[in-house]
Amino acid sequence: MIAEIITIGDELLIGQVVDTNSAWLAEQLNLIGIRVKQISSLSDDREHILTGLKEAASRADLILITGGLGPTKDDITKHTLCEYFDTELIFHQATFENVQALFKLRGFPVTDLNRKQAEVPANCIPLSNSNGTAPGMWFEQDGCIYVSMPGVPFEMKTMVSNVVLPRLAKKYNSTFIIHKTILTQGVGESFLASTIESWEDQLPENLKLAYLPQPGIVRLRLTATGSDKLFVNKLLKLEQAKLQKLIPDLIFGYDDETLELVVGRLLKQKEKTLATAESCTGGYLAHLLTSIAGSSEYYKGSVIAYSNAVKVDLLGVSHQAIESEGAVSEMVVRQMAEGVRKKMDTDYALATSGIAGPDGGSEEKPVGTTWIALATPEKVIAKKFLFGEHRGRNIRKASLAALNMLRMELLEVPEKNAPASH
Amino acid sequence: MIAEIITIGDELLIGQVVDTNSAWLAEQLNLIGIRVKQISSLSDDREHILTGLKEAASRADLILITGGLGPTKDDITKHTLCEYFDTELIFHQATFENVQALFKLRGFPVTDLNRKQAEVPANCIPLSNSNGTAPGMWFEQDGCIYVSMPGVPFEMKTMVSNVVLPRLAKKYNSTFIIHKTILTQGVGESFLASTIESWEDQLPENLKLAYLPQPGIVRLRLTATGSDKLFVNKLLKLEQAKLQKLIPDLIFGYDDETLELVVGRLLKQKEKTLATAESCTGGYLAHLLTSIAGSSEYYKGSVIAYSNAVKVDLLGVSHQAIESEGAVSEMVVRQMAEGVRKKMDTDYALATSGIAGPDGGSEEKPVGTTWIALATPEKVIAKKFLFGEHRGRNIRKASLAALNMLRMELLEVPEKNAPASH
Repeated sequence: MIAEIITIGDELLIGQVVDTNSAWLAEQLNLIGIRVKQISSLSDDREHILTGLKEAASRADLILITGGLGPTKDDITKHTLCEYFDTELIFHQATFENVQALFKLRGFPVTDLNRKQAEVPANCIPLSNSNGTAPGMWFEQDGCIYVSMPGVPFEMKTMVSNVVLPRLAKKYNSTFIIHKTILTQGVGESFLASTIESWEDQLPENLKLAYLPQPGIVRLRLTATGSDKLFVNKLLKLEQAKLQKLIPDLIFGYDDETLELVVGRLLKQKEKTLATAESCTGGYLAHLLTSIAGSSEYYKGSVIAYSNAVKVDLLGVSHQAIESEGAVSEMVVRQMAEGVRKKMDTDYALATSGIAGPDGGSEEKPVGTTWIALATPEKVIAKKFLFGEHRGRNIRKASLAALNMLRMELLEVPEKNAPASH
Repeated sequence: MIAEIITIGDELLIGQVVDTNSAWLAEQLNLIGIRVKQISSLSDDREHILTGLKEAASRADLILITGGLGPTKDDITKHTLCEYFDTELIFHQATFENVQALFKLRGFPVTDLNRKQAEVPANCIPLSNSNGTAPGMWFEQDGCIYVSMPGVPFEMKTMVSNVVLPRLAKKYNSTFIIHKTILTQGVGESFLASTIESWEDQLPENLKLAYLPQPGIVRLRLTATGSDKLFVNKLLKLEQAKLQKLIPDLIFGYDDETLELVVGRLLKQKEKTLATAESCTGGYLAHLLTSIAGSSEYYKGSVIAYSNAVKVDLLGVSHQAIESEGAVSEMVVRQMAEGVRKKMDTDYALATSGIAGPDGGSEEKPVGTTWIALATPEKVIAKKFLFGEHRGRNIRKASLAALNMLRMELLEVPEKNAPASH
């Protein structure tokens, strides 16, 4: 089965918005064995959309369309689809009820404009939008499937995952392409590559490995293909287990997991509590932890001690330590971790202090120098890192490194692969 | 002049790589008055590229092609362009000398493969690549210009800036397209649209308005076209000023500015300091503030009081207030703001307490209910918001709303347009 993706919107063609929807869609289609032939971004223009649809239909069996829906765009996509299929708009009660329910929840009045959003081409199957007012639309004509969806990534992705992919998978039996993403924290791409070289070299031919680095995290994507789903899955599991044994300290999770999710799950399982004290990470570590629903069960809070006065007054760091060692030092970060653990009465505490940049570096302590401490009921561990020059990346890397220190402590994983700075 | 952009590469079609080249190219073309009609991503396939070129040539006067060059791709683009123009590859001495010089610099030996990279279609003008080995190629046929460039963003961008754009600008005297983005916070897209309806209706024909909503922020893009650059700029400024007068409370900045940047700048100008106390935003507000380099000048820190014990012990919130009103209440959020302002000895303090979700809602206080307080040297202001159902978006919306409350206070802007919940 061959698919094409059409994204509609002038904002893409003037370069204001980067089209991230298409890459995500292509990846999802690949997972169920559907190959994408072409991706096209078209303007909010009736004639242009008509031509685009015709060209795509001549090459593909499946056309996924995003964008051009919604009141301020004059619903250009919906009207053009009517023209393309030679049909007209009809009012769809279930869609209108969804709009009404959504607006009631948010306390807004339903206007005539919203009533219009519940109109869909007569020949389509409307697809429910659980996160917005514009419905999706599923069409079939001359052996080709057309699916029109909103362009807001958040609405589109939920619709694809919950409605479109299950419908497609049900309709077609295809070759299996299965991906497994292995998530690592602690070392950069090239260090990781040399650490797992022996494992990579022995991978069978139908298993491919890709490195997908992000600041502080390297994702490894294993892609297996084959006609026997059970066999392909078994092979993936086998290689995954070998790798897990090789780098247990670096692997923190799989697929859509995050380090904050994994750490939160461990704390919950062990019925332990956590507090944080942040200087250089400035709240980002707390934000990661509290982005997980239910985190209040194990996370009590943080003191963001951006100024030295706050370090002394709220965390009990000694004036003398700051004077003699500086705020970015092992002594201060240890006192921060111990201080917040005592103040918030938790089992564990993490503390960060570093030079995020771009200014504030010195020869002795260049930008990127970061101390992280972990206080447990028994001890305090402190570690020095040297990240890079970029403020945003340093903040993220330090927060992830802190979470990984706690993960290893909770799992009692000995550290063997991670160098101190990366 | 109408352009199309064609990006070639299987990596785009399996979703491994997001196409960021096209948005950048579109923006550059716009700046010199060239409109992009369509962006297409094609596979590394001869026939597909031939069709793509023909379709694009039927619509556009300029076709920019990136990718499909380089030894690992078998130079698919170069061979296909030869076929498209019915010509053959010839050896280009200057290109070869560029490859040799580059390799000498990097200390690599020049191989036969590299010699092949210096072959170009006989009918093209080779464009020098200062950052790589594959040359760009400029073709003209039947009134249409084709420019083929490497897909590596770094090589492509340098080539476009240094060679392609100057060539295009010299060849065409074009109309000017100028964009101005106006950033608003506080209301949703439809409320904003009805608030500025009268202004929108009176816009001259060569000025177009687009709504680009994000969680908590709606960007308004004004696009002006005309042959007189000065006049177009003047027109934009005039309409921008009218809008500023209409919704001063909602507009927080322009173009690439962020709310945290604007608020930080104001605090710095007025030599005032800020602290925060966060419950539902869980550190995200602190993170936004500290993401700005130099924020330690005005931002002292935060207490993330995720548990009630921390609210009482570290912020001095009264047990009784939590018991009688609940943690998400006007009384508690006021005490949080006052408490942190006193503890950290700042001029201003912001506090948040809400139900971020997905759990924890009740009939009286549904998910999304959020109280935000601002303490100043003279007073405490508190405001209730009702955001949506999604944890991540609620956290962001609450943080932005808090920043905007402070912005309005610092600028002494009276609130007139923002409803309490949106």
